Amino acid sequence: MSIFWSSTAAALTPYVPGEQPAEGSMIKLNTNENPYPPSPVVLEAIRRAVDGNLRLYPDPNASRLTAAIAARFALTPGEVFVGNGSDEILAFAFQAFFDRDQPVLFPDVTYSFYSVYANLFNLPFTTVPLDGQFRILPADYQRPNSGIILPNPNAPTAIGLPLRQIRELLEGNAGHVVIVDEAYIDFGGESAVPLIAEYPNLLVIHTLSKSRSLAGLRVGYALGQPELIEGLNRVKNSFNSYTLDRLALVGAEASFMDEAYTRSNITRIVQTRENTRSALERLGFSVTDSEANFLFVSHPAMPAPVIFRKLREQGILVRYFDKPRIDDYLRITVGTDTEMAALLKAMVEILPDTDSL
Amino acid sequence: MSIFWSSTAAALTPYVPGEQPAEGSMIKLNTNENPYPPSPVVLEAIRRAVDGNLRLYPDPNASRLTAAIAARFALTPGEVFVGNGSDEILAFAFQAFFDRDQPVLFPDVTYSFYSVYANLFNLPFTTVPLDGQFRILPADYQRPNSGIILPNPNAPTAIGLPLRQIRELLEGNAGHVVIVDEAYIDFGGESAVPLIAEYPNLLVIHTLSKSRSLAGLRVGYALGQPELIEGLNRVKNSFNSYTLDRLALVGAEASFMDEAYTRSNITRIVQTRENTRSALERLGFSVTDSEANFLFVSHPAMPAPVIFRKLREQGILVRYFDKPRIDDYLRITVGTDTEMAALLKAMVEILPDTDSL
Repeated sequence: MSIFWSSTAAALTPYVPGEQPAEGSMIKLNTNENPYPPSPVVLEAIRRAVDGNLRLYPDPNASRLTAAIAARFALTPGEVFVGNGSDEILAFAFQAFFDRDQPVLFPDVTYSFYSVYANLFNLPFTTVPLDGQFRILPADYQRPNSGIILPNPNAPTAIGLPLRQIRELLEGNAGHVVIVDEAYIDFGGESAVPLIAEYPNLLVIHTLSKSRSLAGLRVGYALGQPELIEGLNRVKNSFNSYTLDRLALVGAEASFMDEAYTRSNITRIVQTRENTRSALERLGFSVTDSEANFLFVSHPAMPAPVIFRKLREQGILVRYFDKPRIDDYLRITVGTDTEMAALLKAMVEILPDTDSL
Repeated sequence: MSIFWSSTAAALTPYVPGEQPAEGSMIKLNTNENPYPPSPVVLEAIRRAVDGNLRLYPDPNASRLTAAIAARFALTPGEVFVGNGSDEILAFAFQAFFDRDQPVLFPDVTYSFYSVYANLFNLPFTTVPLDGQFRILPADYQRPNSGIILPNPNAPTAIGLPLRQIRELLEGNAGHVVIVDEAYIDFGGESAVPLIAEYPNLLVIHTLSKSRSLAGLRVGYALGQPELIEGLNRVKNSFNSYTLDRLALVGAEASFMDEAYTRSNITRIVQTRENTRSALERLGFSVTDSEANFLFVSHPAMPAPVIFRKLREQGILVRYFDKPRIDDYLRITVGTDTEMAALLKAMVEILPDTDSL
């Protein structure tokens, strides 16, 4: 504590991201990064932009990137907002759309940054429990609110919500914004983007950090009707005129010029995920149905924090959340086949009474 | 307006940055960019970092960059905070240090983003008038406040505040944070950084956008005692874990490895500024004493908006603020000698009764 902190700063409990160990020192399966590098088209576009023009401010409206994203989703540029990672967009969205008169609703087990944003902006919130199988039940969100936010697929459970249930949420909350955080949608879920024309209260948020292998470039985007995009721009332009640097702008734009590369990596990751899932189940793990690039697992014979620690000793980093309902689970990013083989080998050594795969 | 906007979003009047015309289409003297490219050391460091590791998140603590900045100013890493441009740091600082019980104080003529931040975070503010010569008088800030913020040199006036007056502000407001926004300090002012050890309520904010020619990379930093830096980190880590991408981190770090290059550009810009100032005065302009990389000028024979428009017609972009007290002034960025010659030539053509320099 400090006498110089505002009452807001003093009351915060900041988000803690997954550990970033020195590069190459560990098998890193803890922050859901893509195991494959970004497209060569992206790297080449960035290299070409490393020049004297870095002395100039970037385009504050990110016009070229916005146009590329709009074209990709058959939307207009006025239906696209870009930000410094989807986290920044989420923060802007909390400010732009949620108010203090009613609570923001989100699942009890979900991305743990949501409650942090609510606290930062002094917004009340209510968590809505997932059911016993970690499923979101739209009927539970039929209560007074100033907005709803949820990831699809949910994190860290990896479980997706069918489009008809997203519709149910949108129709049940027509007067308030429903934010669908689709960070992992490319790995198997049903995107709500086709619903944008129909629902003025729908905001969909995507990131380039997962399926597009660009976590290091910090780019995300939001899609929705122009009124919502304008709301985000009002907040952004009251916070920072230039949130994306010149290199992030050109790199992100180039990513949309090489969709085949992204699709091919997604196919590989989904294949690896399914193979890993079967192998983990053979080792006795329970594994949720994953539509993401990670697996959410639990083992009846060994507590999750013990497995976490033993994996770490073997140089494998996964994610453990010491939180109610999920404190016996691990979230494991789907890496390369080689990384997954190393994970499974380590599991065999760690787990009791397991002779082989 | 939209029924979906929060009361906060609905009440905003966002900041409007200077125009960014298509590159090369105009002589651009409107956003105080550096006319010289970034150091070759910076460009080379960025090029080397454009690789497959962009798939990985950046270091959320920016440890290497923070250490480089600390070394440059003989501070500890705990006394350094880095952000996505100094604008982002200013936004975090408003949240971290200012409260609703008393107004934030800043000059009536100053960086126009300050009032925008205050509105975004629902913080009351009072503007303190500059004197008739556009000077900040520290005695005027001896009134109840929840903090003080001011640029040194001030913008858009370009006038610097001597260090003894910064001391006066710090001592008169020992219970609240005084933020000195030194975006332009490298062009001639007296930096308050040496006062950090003495005053726990001092936060100094710098940018790489001006003297370091990196407006396109979006990097700024704040210097202060660890308590203040921790306050900024609490807000930042409740907003976005990774505000600087991997390329901005390495480029900024490299900038501190080539101080000679930056110093040499500053010398050139100051020389050009003084030559331009004399030439403008010979044309009848009144020009404030500039310690920045821009000139703040007014002409008795022609209103500033008219000069602005006529310059624009000749392909020269300067900055005009249609605001009380400064609506007959122009802010002109100091460019290269060639750009300044073009400016002066245009002025001769535009102004009445001016035969030559």
